[in-house]
Amino acid sequence: MFTRQIIERRPSKAIVAGWVEEIRVIGKLVFVVLRDREGKIQIVAPKDKVSQGVFEELSNLTKESVIAVSGEVIQNPEAPFGVELLPKEVVVLGRAESPLPLEFLKVDSSLDKRLDYRFLDLRHPKHLLIFKLGSYLESEIRKFFLKQGFIEVHTPKLVAAATEGGANLFKVEYFERDAYLAQSPQLYKQMLVIAGFERVFEISQVYRAEPHHTTKHLCEYTSIDFELGFIDGVNNVIEVVERCVGNALRKAMKTPEFKEFGVQLLLPKRFPRITYREAYRFMKEIGKKFEWGKEIGSENEIELWKKIREEKKSDLYFLTEFPWEERPFYTMRLQDAPEFTTGFDLIFKGMEIVTGSQREHRYEILLQQLKEKGLNPDSFQFYLTAFKYGAPPHGGAAIGSERLLMQVLELKNIRETTIFPRDPKRISP
Amino acid sequence: MFTRQIIERRPSKAIVAGWVEEIRVIGKLVFVVLRDREGKIQIVAPKDKVSQGVFEELSNLTKESVIAVSGEVIQNPEAPFGVELLPKEVVVLGRAESPLPLEFLKVDSSLDKRLDYRFLDLRHPKHLLIFKLGSYLESEIRKFFLKQGFIEVHTPKLVAAATEGGANLFKVEYFERDAYLAQSPQLYKQMLVIAGFERVFEISQVYRAEPHHTTKHLCEYTSIDFELGFIDGVNNVIEVVERCVGNALRKAMKTPEFKEFGVQLLLPKRFPRITYREAYRFMKEIGKKFEWGKEIGSENEIELWKKIREEKKSDLYFLTEFPWEERPFYTMRLQDAPEFTTGFDLIFKGMEIVTGSQREHRYEILLQQLKEKGLNPDSFQFYLTAFKYGAPPHGGAAIGSERLLMQVLELKNIRETTIFPRDPKRISP
Repeated sequence: MFTRQIIERRPSKAIVAGWVEEIRVIGKLVFVVLRDREGKIQIVAPKDKVSQGVFEELSNLTKESVIAVSGEVIQNPEAPFGVELLPKEVVVLGRAESPLPLEFLKVDSSLDKRLDYRFLDLRHPKHLLIFKLGSYLESEIRKFFLKQGFIEVHTPKLVAAATEGGANLFKVEYFERDAYLAQSPQLYKQMLVIAGFERVFEISQVYRAEPHHTTKHLCEYTSIDFELGFIDGVNNVIEVVERCVGNALRKAMKTPEFKEFGVQLLLPKRFPRITYREAYRFMKEIGKKFEWGKEIGSENEIELWKKIREEKKSDLYFLTEFPWEERPFYTMRLQDAPEFTTGFDLIFKGMEIVTGSQREHRYEILLQQLKEKGLNPDSFQFYLTAFKYGAPPHGGAAIGSERLLMQVLELKNIRETTIFPRDPKRISP
Repeated sequence: MFTRQIIERRPSKAIVAGWVEEIRVIGKLVFVVLRDREGKIQIVAPKDKVSQGVFEELSNLTKESVIAVSGEVIQNPEAPFGVELLPKEVVVLGRAESPLPLEFLKVDSSLDKRLDYRFLDLRHPKHLLIFKLGSYLESEIRKFFLKQGFIEVHTPKLVAAATEGGANLFKVEYFERDAYLAQSPQLYKQMLVIAGFERVFEISQVYRAEPHHTTKHLCEYTSIDFELGFIDGVNNVIEVVERCVGNALRKAMKTPEFKEFGVQLLLPKRFPRITYREAYRFMKEIGKKFEWGKEIGSENEIELWKKIREEKKSDLYFLTEFPWEERPFYTMRLQDAPEFTTGFDLIFKGMEIVTGSQREHRYEILLQQLKEKGLNPDSFQFYLTAFKYGAPPHGGAAIGSERLLMQVLELKNIRETTIFPRDPKRISP
C-alpha cells in the first residue's frame, strides 16, 4: 500500500515499504519517516510497545535504506500526516551506505553533481513530480491524437541522410558503411501520409549534435511529431497544435503535480497569432530590431510574449509566415509572397516549443527548393520519389516535449526535465 | 469524410479525397474507384449527367493520383459498396506518374522491392491494417501500465557502456569520444526503480548490431520495457506480463483489423508455465534434445508450443528458471539452485516475445555476478553505485513489439511489421 492511501483510507493495519528519510532515537522512542512514491508516513516505536528486535532494527537504520514495515495505523492529529504506524515487523530490504554521496533533500548541490547521482537526486519528491507531470502531459497529447484518428508509428532513427541539411549529425558505424542518427522523423512522417496513413504521429527521441551547452538544448530529446494529410492550408495544422497543446495544458493545470509548483498560466481557448512581418514592425516601434529575414531571436520572443500576455492574456502565441531563408527545404512558401513561408512556431512563455508548416507536395517545386537550399537531390531520392506517385497536400508540426514541460513548470534548465540528459559533455549515467 | 463513413451514414452529399485505385472509361461512362485509409468508394460519371470538365478530368486520371471529389451520394445495391458518388466537382491534388514502379495491389513483388517502394507498398489495404493493429496493441499495453500506476519514462539511447555485455553494439561518434546505441533500457529502468519511481515503463526503439539476416531479427526494434519495485518474487513480474499481454491480445481479437486476417488464437486467462528442467525432460522423452545449460532453441520452442497448444489449449507459455549460463549478469539466481535463475521467457506460437526476471539488488552479489560474466566493473560504476544506497527488490521484462504483432497475425517476416526496417543490408528508405 502506498503511504498516501493509508493517510486517505485510514485502515487499522497496513504494510508499507519505502525509503528511510529520517531516523531519530530519543531515549526509549524511535521515530522513522518512511517515504515512498506517493508520500510519507511516520513510524513511532516506543520501546515498551514493540518487540526488542523491531526496536533495534529501527534504531540501527541508515538514511535512505529500503524497509518494509507492517503494523497498526494509529490516528494522531499531532503527527505530521495525521496518522502514524506502530510497527509490528520490520524488514530491511536494502541497506544504504552512510554517508550519502549527495544531500539531495537540501538541493543546494550543483546540477552537475545532482546529475552524477541522479538515482538519489530523483528521490527528492519535487523532482519526481516533474516526471510524473511529464508522463501525464505526454499521455494526454497521445490520447488527443488517437482520438482524432492519427495512427501512432515508429520511424527509423538510423538514417542514411540528414533531414534538415547536413549539420549537427551524429555519425554511426553501421556494418560496412556510415549511418546517422535522425534529427527528426520529418521525411518519414511525410512519406507515411503519402503512403495512405493520412494522419500519423510519433513520440520518440531524436538527436542533434549541437556543440553548444545552453539551458534549452539537449543532444537527445523527445519530439512529439504529427503529420496531417488532405489539408486546405496551414491553418488546419495550426488548429491541431492549438487544440492538442491547449487540451493537454488545461488538463495538466488541474493536477496536484502542477499545483504543487505554484506557477501561473494564462491559457485562452485561442492562442494569439502574429506574423513575422507584424513582429518586425512591433520590434521597430519599441526600438528593438532583428535582421530582416532572419530568426527574430530569443530576446525578442520574450518581448513579444510580455506584450501579448498583457494585451491578450495569453502565455502562448503563434508566430507565423516565417521567411524562406530560415526554414527547411520542404516548407511550402506563400504563393503571393514567396520570400515568406507557411512556417510557424508556437512560443510559450517566450520560448519556441513547436515548429510546423504546410509542406511542399508538388514534386518539381520540392526538387527546386531542395536545390535552392544547397542540398544534393541524390541523397534524398528515397524521399523525393514518393512525391511522384500521388502526394496529397499535407502539413504537420513537432512539439518539443521537454521544452513544453520546462515552460509549464517554469524550470530554469531543460536538464531538470530529462531523467538522464545528454549534452556535449555528458554521456553518463 | 472517410469513405467508410459515407457507406455507414449515407449522407445525401459528400466530399471525399483519396487515391485513384481504378479507372475505367466505357464509352460515355467513367468509373473511378477511390481509396482512402478507411475503405473505398466508386465514382460513376455518365457523360450526360456531369459537366464536361468533370468528365474529362476523370477520364484523364492516372492510377494512384490523389483527388478530391464532391458530389451526390447515390444508393445502388449493385455498386460494389452499396453506394456510389455522382461527381459534381473533381480536383486533382497530386498527379501520379505512370507506370508505377511497383504493382503493390498484386503483392507478388519481392519483399526487398516492396521495401524499396514502401510508400506505395503500404497503400495495400492489408499492409496498412498491420500498422493500425500495431498502434492499437501498443496503446492498449500503454493503457494497462498507466492504469497500474507505472510512470512512462524516456531513458537515453546514447550510452557509454553495453547493457548486456560487449557484443552487438553500434558505435557513435559523440563529440570527442565514442558512445554506443542502447541495446535496451535495462540498466536505466532499474536505476529509476531505485530512484523512487517504483514502477516505470518505456516504449522505445533499441539497437542490436546483429550481423545475421533472419526473418525475426531487426537492427532497430521497439522494446516495451517495464520494471516493478518491491516485489516478493519473480512471480509478481510474470503476472504483470500475463495480464498485460493477455489483456492487449483479448482486445485485439475483437478488432476488425484482426478479424480481417482470419487467424486463430488460443488465449486462456492463465498461460501455462514450464521450467527449463521440465522442458529438457520433455525433449528427451520425445527424442529431441538440446545441450544441458544452453538455450533450448527455436525448433524445440515450437515443439513445446505444439504440445501445450494441444494439451492446455494455449498459444502462449512461460518458460521459466533459465540456466545462469544463458542469462545476463543482473539476473537473480535461484537461492536453492544457483545454476538456474529467475529468468523467464514468454513464448508465443513458438517464438520468444518477452524476456524477464527478478533482478539481483544486493550490491555485493551483483558485483560478483558481473565479474563472473567477464565484464569490467569500471564500465558499470554509474549503475553499480545506485545499489549501494537503498535498492528495493525488483524485476521486470521486455516485450518485443514487432514480434508480438508478427505472431498475432502469423506473418512470416518481421519486416512486414516494421514500416521502414533496418537490417545489416538495409538503411534506406
